[in-house]
Amino acid sequence: MAAERPAQAPPFKVGLLGHGTVGAAFAVLLEERAGEIERFNGRRPLVSGVLTRSRGDFEEILSDADLLVELMGGIEPAREYLLTAMRSGKDVVTANKQLLSQHGEELFETAREYGVRLRFEAAVAGVVPVVRVLEESLSATPIERIHGIVNGTTNFILTEMTGGSSYAEALAEAQRIGYAEADPSDDVSGRDAAAKMAILARLAYGSPVHLDDVRYEGIEHLHGDDLEFARELGLGLKLIGTAERLPGGLSVRVHPAFLYAGHPLAGVSGPFNAVTLESEAITEITLSGPGAGGRQTASAVLGDVVSVMTGGARPPAPPLAIPLVEDVESAFYLHLDVADRPGVLAAVTKVLGEHEVSIKSVVQRGMRERARLVMITHPVLESRLRVAIERLSDFEFVRSAPRTIRVIEEEFV
Amino acid sequence: MAAERPAQAPPFKVGLLGHGTVGAAFAVLLEERAGEIERFNGRRPLVSGVLTRSRGDFEEILSDADLLVELMGGIEPAREYLLTAMRSGKDVVTANKQLLSQHGEELFETAREYGVRLRFEAAVAGVVPVVRVLEESLSATPIERIHGIVNGTTNFILTEMTGGSSYAEALAEAQRIGYAEADPSDDVSGRDAAAKMAILARLAYGSPVHLDDVRYEGIEHLHGDDLEFARELGLGLKLIGTAERLPGGLSVRVHPAFLYAGHPLAGVSGPFNAVTLESEAITEITLSGPGAGGRQTASAVLGDVVSVMTGGARPPAPPLAIPLVEDVESAFYLHLDVADRPGVLAAVTKVLGEHEVSIKSVVQRGMRERARLVMITHPVLESRLRVAIERLSDFEFVRSAPRTIRVIEEEFV
Repeated sequence: MAAERPAQAPPFKVGLLGHGTVGAAFAVLLEERAGEIERFNGRRPLVSGVLTRSRGDFEEILSDADLLVELMGGIEPAREYLLTAMRSGKDVVTANKQLLSQHGEELFETAREYGVRLRFEAAVAGVVPVVRVLEESLSATPIERIHGIVNGTTNFILTEMTGGSSYAEALAEAQRIGYAEADPSDDVSGRDAAAKMAILARLAYGSPVHLDDVRYEGIEHLHGDDLEFARELGLGLKLIGTAERLPGGLSVRVHPAFLYAGHPLAGVSGPFNAVTLESEAITEITLSGPGAGGRQTASAVLGDVVSVMTGGARPPAPPLAIPLVEDVESAFYLHLDVADRPGVLAAVTKVLGEHEVSIKSVVQRGMRERARLVMITHPVLESRLRVAIERLSDFEFVRSAPRTIRVIEEEFV
Repeated sequence: MAAERPAQAPPFKVGLLGHGTVGAAFAVLLEERAGEIERFNGRRPLVSGVLTRSRGDFEEILSDADLLVELMGGIEPAREYLLTAMRSGKDVVTANKQLLSQHGEELFETAREYGVRLRFEAAVAGVVPVVRVLEESLSATPIERIHGIVNGTTNFILTEMTGGSSYAEALAEAQRIGYAEADPSDDVSGRDAAAKMAILARLAYGSPVHLDDVRYEGIEHLHGDDLEFARELGLGLKLIGTAERLPGGLSVRVHPAFLYAGHPLAGVSGPFNAVTLESEAITEITLSGPGAGGRQTASAVLGDVVSVMTGGARPPAPPLAIPLVEDVESAFYLHLDVADRPGVLAAVTKVLGEHEVSIKSVVQRGMRERARLVMITHPVLESRLRVAIERLSDFEFVRSAPRTIRVIEEEFV
């Protein structure tokens, strides 16, 4: 195509590191869209070099390119390549969430020092443009809280489980369709979502947040009957990443959470991603879209390339350290397997009351010798709830370890 | 504040035209956020002059400012001021949807000619950053269809009507809360939404679309029993703006429409706005948030100012004329008041069949002498349905004018 239409301005040369699913889709999409991008921006983008394990020379590709796109994944050599490129004054685009969540400060610092752009829209929520919105639209307003469904694999599995599948069946189905990898642990453990929340928190609050700073909990231990009770209580179950500014500092965490039906994230199902940004001046904005897919991710990467071509992105601001808060208040769902006999509910509520855990609703269901007692608490410090649960576990009528899941209350109506 | 903290770089001077609800909120928000914006962008923004009906001199404000923000509304003198500012080489930000939808090409052309930025995020969907996302993230992917709830007033009224209120009650409530003006005709007629869809269509397709090119229909004539039947059929009712690329050209229109429960816009209730962007490469993205409010709109305006400060926005691309399509295929809800006697359903379906209108579902409900026959059709050209309806109106057993409402089918699952 480029040969048929001589460009007025020199082409915008993109060096591509990595040619897997996303890299290949990116090269195809860039070729398809080159004419339209030229029409809008005056320069025609083209892939001027590709580095894979078996071909290409990094130094050559770098010196020839106006910008490098890193789609190799992993820490090394991606980190070294990006640092080298920025130190050579080249703008870079990456989709590498592991790298950004573990070496983000080093990358940001280098971009700042050399005055180059570092773009990473595709690293966070697939094609959902949350990075751009956080950086640009919302620099005008301080973010108070982010809630996100930022892992499509686990959202697909939870959607299947809500439809009645077991965890094992839902995981197998996700693997069959290609939503989950053979080793799904990065997704189902919550670690992938934690990496993305670290990046979002860094953007929203300007404070360095490392993957190791994010507490995360996965979906492997959820029970089908938690989902069933949730339906009875009018709640949906999602793996939610949260980054919020509290009086004592920031809290960044990932865990399964029940959402009331009216919550903007409650209706997000299947392999979709969605992020809700809350701020006093804007109330809330929700962005949603497909979370994965080579072509979708490639489209987010190409958006970053176009943004650099138009001069839009700026080098990152210097960090502003804010302390992290570990112990956070939340409403909880509490599930107890108990013997079905008089006085059990009274004993349980007495212990909860002594620890200032206040109950919002209770469902009790007897089944012969055994009963299940399901409660939703009002917001309570997690540490306080943990102590109360330890006391409850001591009762001989509690038949198995109490289970808890956080509940996100609706705040905006 | 500015006096207390001497800036390293000269301040970024914003001339403000208009000081009503949004203008005043903008001035307050800019003051509040000036420090943070300076930290990120190196220059501290300040309002260097304000023009109202009673104070300020336009020429003075213009010559002193780095950028003009127009929040006066209306066509003149807003149009003349914006043109003059751009011809003086100044970047401009406006929230004026009427002006953009009626004189957009003149404004875009002037911005292009003088190489200045013309930003208007707040003109379309309140704080929902759809302009930015269309311009930047999605320049990498061609948009096939936009569906939007872009008028918060009508969405609030329809939400109230779904809860059982009559149209008059819901409108009165909207006026009481301040969501609707004393003269609500611009909102309830669909004209406000049509202006916004003209702007979105221009952005998404690059083709000039004037407000006069947009067919619109409002919510004034909706009946409570349409909403009731809709619930029975599992549908929700919204005022939907659509801009889509069809084989014959573009269609840009606004009308009430039924949505299946799974549609991303079906759950958007109250005074919220939401826009769904569909494209092959991205599947779909949905953006939602509050549609109105002085402080929310001010936050979108300030986002535009910051975007100009960071050098992000580019002058608009030259237009690319695409023909407009008037007659569009759609599924329809068809409501007939009929006499309750044998043979009516057969006669009706015969006429529909002769006009190739195919029925997807029927609800018939008899009430003594009178019955209501409610049908959902498969997609059919509007012109063809209109002819069939004319024939139906001729039947003596049809007791009042047949009513139709479009139905938006779910395409992505």
